[in-house]
Amino acid sequence: MNQHTVKAYGDELNQLTAEVARMGGLAEAQVADAVESVARRDVALARAVIERDARLDGMHRDIEKKAIRLIALRQPVASDLRRTLAAMKLAVDLERTGDLAKNISKRALILAEGEPMQPLTRSIERMGKLVSMRLRDVLDAYAVGEVDRAIAVWNTDDEVDEHYNALFRELLTYMMGDPRTITACTHLLFMAKNLERIGDHATNIAETIHYEITGLEFTGERPRWNPDPDLDTPAA
Amino acid sequence: MNQHTVKAYGDELNQLTAEVARMGGLAEAQVADAVESVARRDVALARAVIERDARLDGMHRDIEKKAIRLIALRQPVASDLRRTLAAMKLAVDLERTGDLAKNISKRALILAEGEPMQPLTRSIERMGKLVSMRLRDVLDAYAVGEVDRAIAVWNTDDEVDEHYNALFRELLTYMMGDPRTITACTHLLFMAKNLERIGDHATNIAETIHYEITGLEFTGERPRWNPDPDLDTPAA
Repeated sequence: MNQHTVKAYGDELNQLTAEVARMGGLAEAQVADAVESVARRDVALARAVIERDARLDGMHRDIEKKAIRLIALRQPVASDLRRTLAAMKLAVDLERTGDLAKNISKRALILAEGEPMQPLTRSIERMGKLVSMRLRDVLDAYAVGEVDRAIAVWNTDDEVDEHYNALFRELLTYMMGDPRTITACTHLLFMAKNLERIGDHATNIAETIHYEITGLEFTGERPRWNPDPDLDTPAA
Repeated sequence: MNQHTVKAYGDELNQLTAEVARMGGLAEAQVADAVESVARRDVALARAVIERDARLDGMHRDIEKKAIRLIALRQPVASDLRRTLAAMKLAVDLERTGDLAKNISKRALILAEGEPMQPLTRSIERMGKLVSMRLRDVLDAYAVGEVDRAIAVWNTDDEVDEHYNALFRELLTYMMGDPRTITACTHLLFMAKNLERIGDHATNIAETIHYEITGLEFTGERPRWNPDPDLDTPAA
């Protein structure tokens, strides 16, 4: 490789990482805005979130295309290959995060047509803030390449589950107390599930960062981690 | 490359494809058994599905490791690179499919403790059969490398949504009619959502097969496709 080729190759890798970081910023904003659109019953904001999601889809496709092109033409090895593969993986998690944010805003639009449902939406807001914070922390870890910060996010996965669990029980109690709220509560239930899944994506992102930086698969056991917190609630 | 190297490289690629196909077979069985465990209130079968899921996780990790190794050491290009990347993508979809099947069986265990809920479980069974069939069809398309068969699965995505929609309304009606069934119906609601998401994974798999075989991104619009069928139901 001549100097020019090496330079272009390094540029391409940096560009890929920068585009993932940018996509991360957008996904983070989408989640925060989606939660806001529920909390404030803000129809305009909900519509904006839904509309903006197409950009995340486009970025995902673009990152994937660039990564495949880089692998095919530059044949990266070792840490460069890991960086490229990590970019592809992260783009998938961020695209799914965006889909979930969009789904939350779609449900916000429906809920805005009915009666306000505080304190339930306040619980969604609290859980949404927690999940947004985790997403921000893990994306910060990616931006600065700090594996310890990523692991810190990974280690506190159970906080989201605790919130989800409490919210799930709160929603069931509400529905039983007033069956006219069942449809609205079902939308809130799916919102809570979406937030919980965004939390899972933040955990995946932490694992990918760990792999990219160390080259090792993350083997830590998820302590007290429960993939389906609502399964603690027995039926009937 | 000498003859021996070429042979080993071809073998590795074939092995990778074969392992994905095998993982597909296992994922397909897990979905079918999960649905059976609900329909027959079969606690032993539900436990077996939950236990067997670890094998899918292991296969996913193994396929990913082998694919990365192949890219790093063999530096595949063109159709070989597509085949390798497709294997990685398919393993992700199949692993998620397995998680969703496990989740269904966990809920089956809980429902088995309560009163039987026919005809609701019969509706789950019907939707489950449809989703299983789509998964089988798309995995057949992968095994024989037939892009038309994959597209056929892709084109009939809306059938799953129709089932989900009907089931969603049925569940809401049931809950409103008898609030004591709310917790059980919530589990059935998540089961239906899980089946819908397995249907989405089958659609993703079809797109990946299209990319692997043609080298082109699938650009067809999903006709009448609705990512969130339950959003048709207004709140309150």
